[in-house]
Order: sequence, then structure tokens, then C-alpha cells
Amino acid sequence: MGERLVVIGGDAAGMSAASQARRRRGPDDLEIIAFERGHFTSYSACGIPYWVGGLVDGPDALVARDPQTFREKHAIDVRTRHEVTAVDLDRREVVTRDLDNGGTETRTGFDQLVYAIGAVPIKPAWPGADAQGVFGVQTLDDGQAVRDYIEKEKPRKGVVVGAGYIGVEMAEALQNHGLEVIVLERADQPMSTVDPDMGALVRTSMEKLGIVVHTGETVTALREADGKVVGVDTDNGHYRADIVVLGLGVRPNTQIAKEAGLPLGAGNAIVTDQRMRVVGHEGIWAAGDCVQTIHRLTHEPVHIPLGTHANKQGRVAGVNIGGGYATFPGVIGTAVTKVCDLEVARTGLREADAEKAGFAYITASVESTNRAGYFPGAKPMVVKLIAERVSGRLLGAQIVGRTEAAKRIDGLAIALWNGMTVEEMTGLDLGYAPPYAPVWDPILIAARKATEKLAQ
Amino acid sequence: MGERLVVIGGDAAGMSAASQARRRRGPDDLEIIAFERGHFTSYSACGIPYWVGGLVDGPDALVARDPQTFREKHAIDVRTRHEVTAVDLDRREVVTRDLDNGGTETRTGFDQLVYAIGAVPIKPAWPGADAQGVFGVQTLDDGQAVRDYIEKEKPRKGVVVGAGYIGVEMAEALQNHGLEVIVLERADQPMSTVDPDMGALVRTSMEKLGIVVHTGETVTALREADGKVVGVDTDNGHYRADIVVLGLGVRPNTQIAKEAGLPLGAGNAIVTDQRMRVVGHEGIWAAGDCVQTIHRLTHEPVHIPLGTHANKQGRVAGVNIGGGYATFPGVIGTAVTKVCDLEVARTGLREADAEKAGFAYITASVESTNRAGYFPGAKPMVVKLIAERVSGRLLGAQIVGRTEAAKRIDGLAIALWNGMTVEEMTGLDLGYAPPYAPVWDPILIAARKATEKLAQ
Repeated sequence: MGERLVVIGGDAAGMSAASQARRRRGPDDLEIIAFERGHFTSYSACGIPYWVGGLVDGPDALVARDPQTFREKHAIDVRTRHEVTAVDLDRREVVTRDLDNGGTETRTGFDQLVYAIGAVPIKPAWPGADAQGVFGVQTLDDGQAVRDYIEKEKPRKGVVVGAGYIGVEMAEALQNHGLEVIVLERADQPMSTVDPDMGALVRTSMEKLGIVVHTGETVTALREADGKVVGVDTDNGHYRADIVVLGLGVRPNTQIAKEAGLPLGAGNAIVTDQRMRVVGHEGIWAAGDCVQTIHRLTHEPVHIPLGTHANKQGRVAGVNIGGGYATFPGVIGTAVTKVCDLEVARTGLREADAEKAGFAYITASVESTNRAGYFPGAKPMVVKLIAERVSGRLLGAQIVGRTEAAKRIDGLAIALWNGMTVEEMTGLDLGYAPPYAPVWDPILIAARKATEKLAQ
Repeated sequence: MGERLVVIGGDAAGMSAASQARRRRGPDDLEIIAFERGHFTSYSACGIPYWVGGLVDGPDALVARDPQTFREKHAIDVRTRHEVTAVDLDRREVVTRDLDNGGTETRTGFDQLVYAIGAVPIKPAWPGADAQGVFGVQTLDDGQAVRDYIEKEKPRKGVVVGAGYIGVEMAEALQNHGLEVIVLERADQPMSTVDPDMGALVRTSMEKLGIVVHTGETVTALREADGKVVGVDTDNGHYRADIVVLGLGVRPNTQIAKEAGLPLGAGNAIVTDQRMRVVGHEGIWAAGDCVQTIHRLTHEPVHIPLGTHANKQGRVAGVNIGGGYATFPGVIGTAVTKVCDLEVARTGLREADAEKAGFAYITASVESTNRAGYFPGAKPMVVKLIAERVSGRLLGAQIVGRTEAAKRIDGLAIALWNGMTVEEMTGLDLGYAPPYAPVWDPILIAARKATEKLAQ
């Protein structure tokens, strides 16, 4: 009589879906089984670099809800250390292997399925890439592995490949352990998620803290000895390395989906509708780092794996499975990062994105302060706006500051989300008091400058 | 051939207008004379409590641009210590008194006039109200007077009448000087700019820091001895006081406008159009704490004297005087305040405002944290949303937190400005990283709760 929901992937997306479905449908109506390959459920993957760096406790502190709680309080049958190897859509079964019991295979039938096994770190097929001491950082188990390796091997030299979010966070984490750290980035700047002018600020900050940053340099091979990594070769030289962390981004974990015949789109991520139903497959849902979504400005499908989207998408899937109605409205590319002592934030399109999408645009950058200039703790912050020519519509925004800077991107993200023009933004009624802002908020100053540029 | 612009009032509104007009019209085309009663121009009145409390330097640090700079760099003829006593619209002249030269009266003709003499602290006609040691805090000269009195008289007991923004800030400032401070408030809570449930949090915070807060108590008289204030009588008792600070709000400084025949509206503030032209009077402009504006939610005229509005309105007037086109789009009641160790923020309507305006509404309050719960420095913050029934449109929002809380009101203010519903807000793409927010941002959690309440 009741249905069975099978969730594959026990982190943000999967367990949000399970929880929301459970809130709306009791155990008699909906049995829920969740398979998770690792040891943990519902954890903050974004917290891993801080845990590795010793700034926060872990792994338990990073877990929002553990398997036992799901089982006992929510009647969700979580089975950790179970890896899904196949989804059989014809028989509506998933095939799993019990990793702790010799890989025993089981088939489990489902009426509804949530596919939420996330993404996996990109690891090029370099010679030596499988040596010990080479780590991607995506799961709590990965984080534990890095910590164990540092403790056991006491590495002195660390190389981080890739200077995106994870790369810069992990560089800082390794430095916290006393390692000499080199970051190798193929692009011309670190943090290519922001424009080069903003990325240059990031580079300066990293270098000031003693992290060596090499850009425009491509890794060609890893060197190993006795099965352990000992160095990195690039098109420009060789670096000794006792540990290598990969920050080259992730790819959606969709091999199983592909084999099952589910539709893949941007970057091989799964294609869903706005309710997170896999297109063309009734009763099959997907959410999190393994799905594509729509960018609200370009209307193009994009693959942006972030915990905040995963949680929302999982919730949307769960509400719909539970008989409610919810949609995921797409993304605008908002992201914030702590890079050493800098706060870096972005939303919308970078200049390169705007060009690629065919927008004509102007940019305006202003340097202001987080607090009134005379107030203790006032620190410089740079706000950059990108606005469409003629219409004046905000297309993108970036912030680099010291403190109380990054989250100001939210106001800009909400303005952008609503299609505001920079001229309209000059009149916004924002909060002002000397401890929190200059009387002309940095956002307003930037909007004024952009408005003036549009008029030229 | 050229025109003459006379500006009365040399603070934010007046000097913004003068500066913007100058940017667009050179000295040959537009002569600009600005009269200011006090010693200072373009200063941060909002910084005065922090200066009095010794947290920031002053008075010069609070001055954005001094008279000499205006004269030399901007060809704006600033005449400080000149009090305007009348505006003669028939002859298009202002009458001023030179306070440093025996009050010599002068008449100065104008083609265009900016009326920007702000607001004056409300001082009831209590017996003893004119004793020495009783202060309003509106101008830098007021701030200097308070500082001088503290230094000279070494008061030990301070009474602050009124627990609004200025009251709570001045209570803290007096306490910084080692005074025992009592705050007397007629309403049932301090900070009645937020709802009572949020005001209760403010009260607790003030009391924890040793400030005595008496609510529901009305001052009836001040006591004096030898011309100096020595106590405060209320309908409930008597309090010794060596200094009394009034935080009862301000009234627009519009007696001169009234006598000149300019139209007064909400709270006797001057009525302007969206370009800041005084309605019915060509060439007469007004801006800042002396004008009314329109609340974008209720469409009612309101008098909300705040530096941020004054700056914007002055700029708008100046752009228009300069031959450009700009409008002031009205306000939504955004404000942020530091109250002891709390950050307090609001936008839109309080519950009482919503009721008065005839809205049916729901409220949702959530307690979350400014950072991921496991991240060092995570502190509790409460977010309250008020949303219209049926439509779900956001009507108001309030935040009380410890750090990194107040300015989050901006995102809510921008959502409200754009007429977003709380359901739409649940999908907003906000910045997430553990140092800056939980994975479900407090704003999103509040929006979810409000959405659920609407569905009940």
C-alpha cells in the first residue's frame, strides 16, 4: 500500500529530500531508505578545509544530523558504507555494495528514487596521480584522510593544484600545519571565479601570508617514490611535495545515471525540471552537485556544485515527493569565500561571462570602507559592478574586503535577482549607522558610479 | 547672467546639494552661497554619540568636508555661524544673522534656494528644562557642549530621557565616562522602532551592561540648583541627575519655512515632489531632516530624519539644480543601530505599522547564527519577518544579533523594495561559506518559516 523512496547519497541534497518527504508523509505511507558510500550523513563539506586546518573541530561537529538520528527520530533507514553501483530503471531497483561486508551486493526496489550522489574531485590522468599523499577534498572521509596523512607523514612541503575556492582554502589549511605551500594554477590569476582585477587582490593577500602562488603553469605529472608522492612536474619546472591537494574542481558523479539512461546536460550533470524531477522519468528525482540548473541571467544550463544549492534542491525534491509543491528557481552565481585575511564575494556574471553571453556592459569599481571611515575597525573594501549598457540592469557584482564585506554581496544578489538597474539602486534604503557603514553605503557609491558611467 | 543658489543649512543635505550643483555648473554659471548656523559643515551627526563616548575622535574626524575646502576646491561660499532668520519669497531673499558679529543682519538674494536646516531635538516645556546640563544631541556643537560639560562638571549620575536610537547610544556614551546611567522611556520597551519582542532583547542587553532601564515612565519636570540640572521627576518617582540627555526624537526645523508660506505636511515637515522641489514653489528646494517623504509600502507621507536620506535627497536636489534629472524614490524605513553589544536592524513595517495601515499579516521569527554553527565566532541572531496574508509579500523585517547581523537587513530591505514574497525569497541565491553563514542563511530559514505559516 505504502510507497518506498530510495535515496542514493546521504549528504545535503539526499537527506534534505528524505527529511522533507518524511515531514509530509508518515512511515506507513512512505518507507525511506538512504544509501551512503561514506561513514557520515548530512555534513558540511564546505567546512572540511577549516577542519583540516584545525580552525574547527571535526568530523562530528560538521555533521548536522547523523545516521542514528535519522533512523530513530525520522524513521529514515540510513545505510552507510553502502555504495550504489547501478540503477535499474526497468525493474525499478538500485544495486548496492556493502563496503564493510566484503562488498556483498543487494538489489533494493523503489517507487521513487532520489539521485543525489554529488560530485567527485577532478583528477587528471597524470603519471603518479594515484600515489599516496594525493588528495581531493570532497567528503568528510577525504578530510579525515588528509588529516591522518599529515599526522602520520608529517609533510613539510605541500603543493595545491588549482587556485579556486577549495585550492585557496586548502592552501591556508596546510599552512596552518606549518607546511611550506605552493599553489599552482593554470589560469593567469588565482580565484578565476572573480575578474582578474579582483583576483589580483587575492593573489597579493595570499603572497603576503607567505603562500607561493604560481599562475599560468600547468601540471604535467606527479612524481612518486615508495608509492608516495614526492614532487610535482609542470610545464615550467619541478616542485618537491610531501603532500598534494587537488583543487581542480569537481565533475558530477553521474556515471551510474548515464548507464541507467538518465539525461545528462551541462558538464554531464543530470537534467531535471524545476521540481527536481529527472526529465522524462516519472518518480526519479535528482538534486545537488550531480544536477545542472538554469542561470537566471543567461538562461543557459550550468553546473554549479555548491552546498547551498544542494540543500535547496533536496528540499524542493522532498516537498514534491511529499505531495507538496515547490520549485527550484535557478541560480545567479552567488558565492563567498574567505581567502587568507580577505573576504571575496561574487554574484551574477563576470566580465568574461557577460561577453560570452553577448551582453554589452560597463563596469564600475569603487573603494570604500565597511564602516564609517572614522569608526574603529574601518577596513577598505572594493565593490565592482557590471551593468548592461542602455538598460542599466545589474549583471554582476564582486566584492573584496577585509571584514564585514563578503555578505554584502547578498544585497547585490537580491537586486540582481529582481532585475534592478544601477540607477534604481542609487535610491535604495539601506541600513546606515557608523559601526556598520559609511553614510553612503559602498553599494550605493558603486551604483552611483555605474550610473554615471552609463550616462557617458 | 549667472544664477545664484543659496543653501541654508551646511550639513549633509545642504552641502550634498551644493556639491552636486557645482559638479554640473561652474562658478560663472552658478554662484553658490551656503549659510550654516554652527561651526561645522558636512559632518556625521550619527557619529556624535561615539565621539561623546570616546570611541572615535572628533570633531574634525566627523567632518567629511570643511568650509575651507568647500570655498577653495568647490567655489562654494560657506558662511558658518550665520543663522537664517527668515526666507522672503516675494523678494527672493534670505535674512541671516552673523552670530560672531553681534548678530548683524544681512539680506541675500537668490534665484534658487535649498532649504536644509534639518531638525531640532524635541524638548518638552518641563519646569527646569532650560537648566545647564540638559542636552539635545543633534549637531557637532551639541556634541562639543556635552563633552565640555562632562569634562568640567564631572557628572556622576546621568539620566537619558527616551530610549530610541540616540537615547540608547548616548546612554552607552555616558557609561563610557564612568557615569551611572538611567534611561527613562515612556513606552513599554526601549527601541520602539522595533517590535516589543525584539525590544525585549535590547532591554536585556542594556541591563546586562549595567544601564538601568525604566519603561512606562513619563518625565514631568527637571530639577535645578544654581542654574544646573540636579534631578528628574517622573510620574513614578525622582532621580538624581548631574547631566540629562534628551533622546525624544526631533522635529523638523520648519518654523522659518512656515512663516515663509512653504507647505508643511507630515509632522510639520516640508512637502516636496520627487525631485525635491518644494511643491508649488519654483526654484525652492528642500532636503534632509526638514522634509517629509513617502513610505513606499503605505504610500503615506512620513517624516524619517536620517543621515542616509538627507545625503540622497541633497544629491537629488543638487543634480536637478545642476540641470540633470534625479528623483528620490521614497523610503521603506530601514535602520540599523548598535545597542551595547547588540546589533539591531529593521526595515519596512513593524506589526503595529502593518495593523495601522490595514494589512493582514503573519510573522515568523527564527533564531539562527551569523556563521556556520561550528565556526569560531558563531553568535546567535534572531530574524523576524512580517508578510502580507494571501499575497505573501514581505512587509517588514527585523534582526537582533551580536556581530555581522545588522547589515543583513540590506538584503531584506532590497527584497521588500522589490515586492518579493517570502516564498520567492526561499529560493534566493545568497552567499554561503562557513565563516559567513550557515548553509541555510538565517534569511532563508526565516523565509521558509514565513512561507509555512502562510500555508496554515
